[in-house]
Amino acid sequence: MAYKSPVRDLTFVLHDVLQVETHADHFGDTDVSRDLIDQIIEEGGKFAESVIAPINKAGDTEHCKLHNGVVTTPTGWKEAYHQMVEAGWTSLAFNTEYGGQGLPSIVSMAVGQFTAAASAAFSMYPGLTGGAFHGIEANASEELKQKWLPKMATGEWTGTMNLTEPQCGTDLGMVRTKAVPNDDGSYAITGQKIWISAGEHDFAENIVHTVLARVEGAVPGIKGLSLFLVPKFHVDDAGNITERNGVQCVGLEHKMGIHGNATAVMQYENAKGWLIGEEGRGMNNMFVVMNEARLGTGLQGLAISDAAYQHAVEFANDRLQGRALTGPKNPDGPADPIIVHPDVRRMLLEAKAYVEGGRAFILWTALQADLQHSKDEAVAQKANDYMGLITPVLKAFLTDRGFHVASLGMQVHGGSGYTEHFQASQYLRDARITMIYEGTNGIQALDLVGRKLPAKGGRAIMSWFGDIDAFVSENQGNEAIKPYVDGLADAKAKLQEGTMWLMQNGMANPDNAGAASSDYLHLFGLTAYAYIWAQMAKAAQAKIDAGDTDPFYANKLKTGRYFVERILPDAGAHLAKLKTGAEVLMDLDASAF
Amino acid sequence: MAYKSPVRDLTFVLHDVLQVETHADHFGDTDVSRDLIDQIIEEGGKFAESVIAPINKAGDTEHCKLHNGVVTTPTGWKEAYHQMVEAGWTSLAFNTEYGGQGLPSIVSMAVGQFTAAASAAFSMYPGLTGGAFHGIEANASEELKQKWLPKMATGEWTGTMNLTEPQCGTDLGMVRTKAVPNDDGSYAITGQKIWISAGEHDFAENIVHTVLARVEGAVPGIKGLSLFLVPKFHVDDAGNITERNGVQCVGLEHKMGIHGNATAVMQYENAKGWLIGEEGRGMNNMFVVMNEARLGTGLQGLAISDAAYQHAVEFANDRLQGRALTGPKNPDGPADPIIVHPDVRRMLLEAKAYVEGGRAFILWTALQADLQHSKDEAVAQKANDYMGLITPVLKAFLTDRGFHVASLGMQVHGGSGYTEHFQASQYLRDARITMIYEGTNGIQALDLVGRKLPAKGGRAIMSWFGDIDAFVSENQGNEAIKPYVDGLADAKAKLQEGTMWLMQNGMANPDNAGAASSDYLHLFGLTAYAYIWAQMAKAAQAKIDAGDTDPFYANKLKTGRYFVERILPDAGAHLAKLKTGAEVLMDLDASAF
Repeated sequence: MAYKSPVRDLTFVLHDVLQVETHADHFGDTDVSRDLIDQIIEEGGKFAESVIAPINKAGDTEHCKLHNGVVTTPTGWKEAYHQMVEAGWTSLAFNTEYGGQGLPSIVSMAVGQFTAAASAAFSMYPGLTGGAFHGIEANASEELKQKWLPKMATGEWTGTMNLTEPQCGTDLGMVRTKAVPNDDGSYAITGQKIWISAGEHDFAENIVHTVLARVEGAVPGIKGLSLFLVPKFHVDDAGNITERNGVQCVGLEHKMGIHGNATAVMQYENAKGWLIGEEGRGMNNMFVVMNEARLGTGLQGLAISDAAYQHAVEFANDRLQGRALTGPKNPDGPADPIIVHPDVRRMLLEAKAYVEGGRAFILWTALQADLQHSKDEAVAQKANDYMGLITPVLKAFLTDRGFHVASLGMQVHGGSGYTEHFQASQYLRDARITMIYEGTNGIQALDLVGRKLPAKGGRAIMSWFGDIDAFVSENQGNEAIKPYVDGLADAKAKLQEGTMWLMQNGMANPDNAGAASSDYLHLFGLTAYAYIWAQMAKAAQAKIDAGDTDPFYANKLKTGRYFVERILPDAGAHLAKLKTGAEVLMDLDASAF
Repeated sequence: MAYKSPVRDLTFVLHDVLQVETHADHFGDTDVSRDLIDQIIEEGGKFAESVIAPINKAGDTEHCKLHNGVVTTPTGWKEAYHQMVEAGWTSLAFNTEYGGQGLPSIVSMAVGQFTAAASAAFSMYPGLTGGAFHGIEANASEELKQKWLPKMATGEWTGTMNLTEPQCGTDLGMVRTKAVPNDDGSYAITGQKIWISAGEHDFAENIVHTVLARVEGAVPGIKGLSLFLVPKFHVDDAGNITERNGVQCVGLEHKMGIHGNATAVMQYENAKGWLIGEEGRGMNNMFVVMNEARLGTGLQGLAISDAAYQHAVEFANDRLQGRALTGPKNPDGPADPIIVHPDVRRMLLEAKAYVEGGRAFILWTALQADLQHSKDEAVAQKANDYMGLITPVLKAFLTDRGFHVASLGMQVHGGSGYTEHFQASQYLRDARITMIYEGTNGIQALDLVGRKLPAKGGRAIMSWFGDIDAFVSENQGNEAIKPYVDGLADAKAKLQEGTMWLMQNGMANPDNAGAASSDYLHLFGLTAYAYIWAQMAKAAQAKIDAGDTDPFYANKLKTGRYFVERILPDAGAHLAKLKTGAEVLMDLDASAF
């Protein structure tokens, strides 16, 4: 089947729920008019459907191939990438000073949903370029920025992030790649980096690697790390590509999914690199990139689940098998379509409720990313607080639920879903990595309870609770949306109880915080979805009250009803689990597992 | 790493929890002495570890290959199968009248856990033979049985089940394969069957297919189906293989997992077959086989999760990354093993609690399978009732949770788990099919609420509730196991409430039963695990009270504690969900998904 970009649903969230235009003051000179946004989204949706989605399956079946350091991408991928560059889809959100189009995050995150749904593995090539671009932009010298960023903005060159080594993934303090100062101010980088997404390919004439390494003689651990810009090819002052640098792809990982993306083993042998920012500030400089990558990964989890959901819906409407429990619904056919069965609908509605909730949650978050840059300091600070708090939740919750939805999508297909003839398997396999990379979801949970929650005396979550309370009291009299408002109030009360428990018990024993972290994050995610679902219900109900007869709004309310009635009950289970504390986890000797 | 057969845990369940020997009276002449059982389990465990586990990965990477109708299995598979046949491991539970060893189910289900954990795909070859054997044994003429069963019992020949066709999986009433009577009493079978596990291979000189087909002129639908025995090669009266029959493997499915098993497209062209049982009784005759296959699939889900769990434990002990939240635990090393982290332990304990609970639940079920044959009618009837009730729960709950555990196993590995270098990916991919085949888990849930629960006026569940109540009141005074007993009582109360809701609402509107079915099944599964965990806690505590200092018992109690505190809270969520009814599911128009 063909992937359909959910343009209608997206414009509902942007305009009716988030009312982006009402925030125009905070966007400075950036145009956030409805016309412009809708036009970009419309065109972006078409591009994803017509150019990217058709190449997705070839990526899965053909994989990337490595011969003598040269990586060949699957059939049609290079051409699709070139079309993307030519149409300007890679440069939407980059700074206009360095060749970007300067559009807000909310627009690039909207279009990004289409791209990643059409092909998650393909979307990683521009995605990684974005991470590297922002890492350089935030900290490098103006000279480096002027030299490297403009062609990254256009997509003519791509970028990567090089962190992991065989002995260290999560614990980057153990990085061994070393940097020796050259006489000309550059450094000679030597070491091996693994799991480098988009590390090598045939899309572009140059690749700009950002590499975490330790300057010779620097202190051990995190504080001895510096960030370097290491190009595949050198470039002269006129911008022409010159000789090859000392960096090579020496292997590709054989992975369960995202086969179309080259996950490279990169070998650096006295490769010439330039320091990005200050020596010893490598991890700090990397954080901005890692935060962006986490949002991108959450978006990927959502997007894959959307595609998986769409395929499951089509299958459920097409597949004739058995009869409805209440009598034939397709009496002239040999059987009814399986979508007549309550349990099939349960799976589809569960998927739909997660997908639509996640889509709105991402766009709400993207709005915060934009509001961070408001000239109104109070607005900027609040948005910045929210970004810190929400980033780990968005990454982990959307990817955990994204995988769950992909698995539901396979289940709707029955046996067909397990064969590689349908794409259900690809979505499930592709989705699984999003729970792991850019910090495993367990690491996200630890970041949430250990850093983000207590930061600034808990200012972010208190502010967010205040927003929810205000929403609840403002809408308490609205009978038509009572179930959604009540569901939100209940989830928020549970999250508040969990937060209190953490404050009381996590300080005394950090293992309590660790033990509670994943359940706390899931309780948080459910509450955030309850909040955005309540906002969507309010917006849909307002349309209905105003006489709009588009069934879209009634259907939105029905889907939200599923969320409240059949997903939100998990909140109580997460609260009960998180309050059990560390003892039951720490009591068993390591040898007894 | 090497898979280790969990012999110690299994003997605990068999002897200390289920006390198999105390049931000896009901086993007739069958020897169920501790010595015999332990010896078989010990040897079976060694065989799985040393012969089967080593070939598992080759199955995943090499797949089965088809050339001109001939299927070649992966390197070492044929040899391992021959060793299995020679050692007699394929014939444990078959009837001695037809060449089997006549051992009870509880023994074959114990050893089966090792085999399927060592290689799920490999275990399907003897598994399917077992299904076909019992289908023939239950209904075929004595002549057919004498001719075909003995070599199936020894494993010299294998068997298959041929049900699915391209247009029908769940809804077998649409089977088109036709059978035309020949003059000699046999039938000419023509049609295509798909998804035939172990349908063609190089293990054995003959394959005995059991095939569902419609005799020409028979009524449409289920009632027109008959079951046939269709061999790959004909066999003369002296038992010698003669000419090839008209059945051919014309394709192999490309699947997400279980690559070592040939999932065949089988083409029948006037293949000669013999009726098994009566004409028009094909589905009834197949039920016995399908029930056995469901238990085997549940066992497979458990077994794969055990292997996935073991790999995750080893990785968590080996991988050095980061430091414990409470200070270094491996101060002389570059980092602590990740098993020091509460959230890693959460994942491992969740896996361990499911694996050990599932193992005990399967063995309890196998005991019921054996007690069905007791000469004591009351015992036999009760066990038979339980088998009917429990089979769909066991199939769906163990496979859903098995996949969950396999996914946790991958998560513990982090990025390494997503590469095919480790086996985490294979376990996750292999486990996923168990939720689908032998009736999707949604179909199991429907079978539970629609057929098994109301059967005989609800006699089975009332009896089971009675057993639980008796256990609870018997052990209520035992302070040492109070959390387990209380957890059980609470889960049972919730299941009873859910059962009442179903009785009240499922009759009035069958869609209510369908809408509740999956959550009801999961609530049932959790209650069944709570019951077996409470029994395990009791047995372990009794050992401790008797002065046994083996830490195995204290560890068992700790793992059970995790189950009660951190898994059982889901019961409340399932109850809340199942009580929401059908409306929220049925309300959305099919076109609005």
